[in-house]
Amino acid sequence: MKVDGKHFRSIWLEPDGWSVGAIDQRKLPHRFVVVRLTSCDAAADAIRSMLVRGAPLIGATAAYGVALAMRADGSDTALEAACNTLLATRPTAINLKWALEELRLALTPLPASARAAAAYARAGAIAEDDVAINTSIGRHGLGLIEALAAAKKRGERVNVLTHCNAGWLATVDRGTATAPIYLAHDRGLAIHVWVDETRPRNQGSSLTAWELGHHGVPHTVVADNTGGHLMQHGMVDLVIVGTDRVTASGDVCNKIGTYLKALAAHDNGVPFYVALPSPTIDFSIDDGATQIPIEQRAAEEITTMTGRTADGRIETVQIVPDGSPVANYGFDVTPARLVTGLITERGVLNADRAALAAAFPERIAAAAE
Amino acid sequence: MKVDGKHFRSIWLEPDGWSVGAIDQRKLPHRFVVVRLTSCDAAADAIRSMLVRGAPLIGATAAYGVALAMRADGSDTALEAACNTLLATRPTAINLKWALEELRLALTPLPASARAAAAYARAGAIAEDDVAINTSIGRHGLGLIEALAAAKKRGERVNVLTHCNAGWLATVDRGTATAPIYLAHDRGLAIHVWVDETRPRNQGSSLTAWELGHHGVPHTVVADNTGGHLMQHGMVDLVIVGTDRVTASGDVCNKIGTYLKALAAHDNGVPFYVALPSPTIDFSIDDGATQIPIEQRAAEEITTMTGRTADGRIETVQIVPDGSPVANYGFDVTPARLVTGLITERGVLNADRAALAAAFPERIAAAAE
Repeated sequence: MKVDGKHFRSIWLEPDGWSVGAIDQRKLPHRFVVVRLTSCDAAADAIRSMLVRGAPLIGATAAYGVALAMRADGSDTALEAACNTLLATRPTAINLKWALEELRLALTPLPASARAAAAYARAGAIAEDDVAINTSIGRHGLGLIEALAAAKKRGERVNVLTHCNAGWLATVDRGTATAPIYLAHDRGLAIHVWVDETRPRNQGSSLTAWELGHHGVPHTVVADNTGGHLMQHGMVDLVIVGTDRVTASGDVCNKIGTYLKALAAHDNGVPFYVALPSPTIDFSIDDGATQIPIEQRAAEEITTMTGRTADGRIETVQIVPDGSPVANYGFDVTPARLVTGLITERGVLNADRAALAAAFPERIAAAAE
Repeated sequence: MKVDGKHFRSIWLEPDGWSVGAIDQRKLPHRFVVVRLTSCDAAADAIRSMLVRGAPLIGATAAYGVALAMRADGSDTALEAACNTLLATRPTAINLKWALEELRLALTPLPASARAAAAYARAGAIAEDDVAINTSIGRHGLGLIEALAAAKKRGERVNVLTHCNAGWLATVDRGTATAPIYLAHDRGLAIHVWVDETRPRNQGSSLTAWELGHHGVPHTVVADNTGGHLMQHGMVDLVIVGTDRVTASGDVCNKIGTYLKALAAHDNGVPFYVALPSPTIDFSIDDGATQIPIEQRAAEEITTMTGRTADGRIETVQIVPDGSPVANYGFDVTPARLVTGLITERGVLNADRAALAAAFPERIAAAAE
């Protein structure tokens, strides 16, 4: 998407044809810094340090990491070492594991001398596939926004609420939850986005708001506590969020706090949609609340906050009393009964087993094997 | 309540018999600073600058402000000026208006020379009345906690979730939502409190956590997004919050985000209680969602965060991108249907018109006049 008029992706091959460009997302929203990755270790560091984040972007970065490794040394040993190094950066990331498996399968049969070129080709294809999926999600979600816009009076905007960052920065481009929003905005529909701050890591205020602002999409940042009040007062037409994992029966695991917004949407008759690329569906599990383990993250995410002082310094401040314990659950599960629909690359589906199975029969067949 | 073993109230008459002590709540949780108010202007400044906050404490501070004014000059002009100055500090605060009206009614008939002593007596009585009300709230709420504790296995704690600060710092002592918690803890019941951070002003992490920690009550600070997940997993036995205003039919206006927790409690069968002194009930209105105007507060509460750096400086940092608009709704309304009960000084009541009218017949009579 655009950053002040210039088109960017979150990761790209540099004009030199081998080094890899990326945005240092740790420095957002206060500084826009582009980095150049020139080795597998640099790619691994980028993932580990969260210079890049978001499941699809992590997958693409890992794929380029293998390509950088193969450029230096195409041997079996180097391939094995690269995959191990990259996998260890975020061991629970499904996309990371999947991308590395793709590369390993594609490269292993090839002679060492052919592996670098093949790795770059496969990494590029993984990136393009992500953009294509998100474009499809955008088109399917656009229909929902267009229908709401058609019912509006002249001058009224469609108000979408989103939580966390399922934006283009988390993917290669367009994002998942944001894909319909960008498409609607680019087509001239009057749209406005309520951006949940998304404590404790503030991905909403620091990433989603930054994205939307730099692309020119009208938006307003609110505390996570606010969505219920907005929905009670007719100020939200539609909720669209992303997800980290959807079960076979349509339960949705996403950033902590998503469940609270789904409850408020349900209580106020506001449609609640989840945008996702289909690999996010885990056909091996059914019940999200009992079968998805919820990661507990570092206490510092709750106890401290980082930002920019009035005179431009980046500082981290403690905001919890000394000695007060904290708990930091990263995700929650929204039961399928609260989900109006799942926006996938194959269309908008009901959040239930039958609809998911009908749309992805090959996944059901694979899961049964 | 206690601060590291020593008993404090949030406001007190100093041993000199005329000056007024208070805790500078703006400096919490990082610094515990006691101030001495020696004039009506100082009391007004304390309210205006939020050195003191919380409806009951504001009322008591205003009453002492009038006493300080009368000590300097007991004339009609001085009384009028003091009341006007104090009322202008937080014009929408109901308790402030009520306390000043009490003082005006009590002092006007008296000769100028008798007004200082009468004002100190009335201010002291207002403070004592607040403590007595909160003590009653505590006793009635204790029954709820005892019942939950009785159903626990040996070694298990009763887990209470609270939002914002309805603690002793917001009142003269004991607090409203915290009164049952302190009483239970002091009686040796095993209790643990989930403390919502309460964005954007962080009254949970900076005040409630500080209070509980310094009194010795086990607690854990969580992001506001977390309560739904905790309730889904059986980690909350009871929610107790405070309120700024309750309607005649039991709708509850409280800090933004309360409604989301009430929805989660309802969805998971967790009892949701609201603790309040009965003057908080506004018998002149029925429907909270349409009849209670919701204050919009300063953007800076969303865009910035203040805390302590690792080397001990207090800094304010910006956490939202330059140019991103924000909205800051201060309160929301929880419909009575989501409220299990109202813990008042006259007992635990159903959140409905009949129960409130039966418990406070004199208020109904007054409202009908």
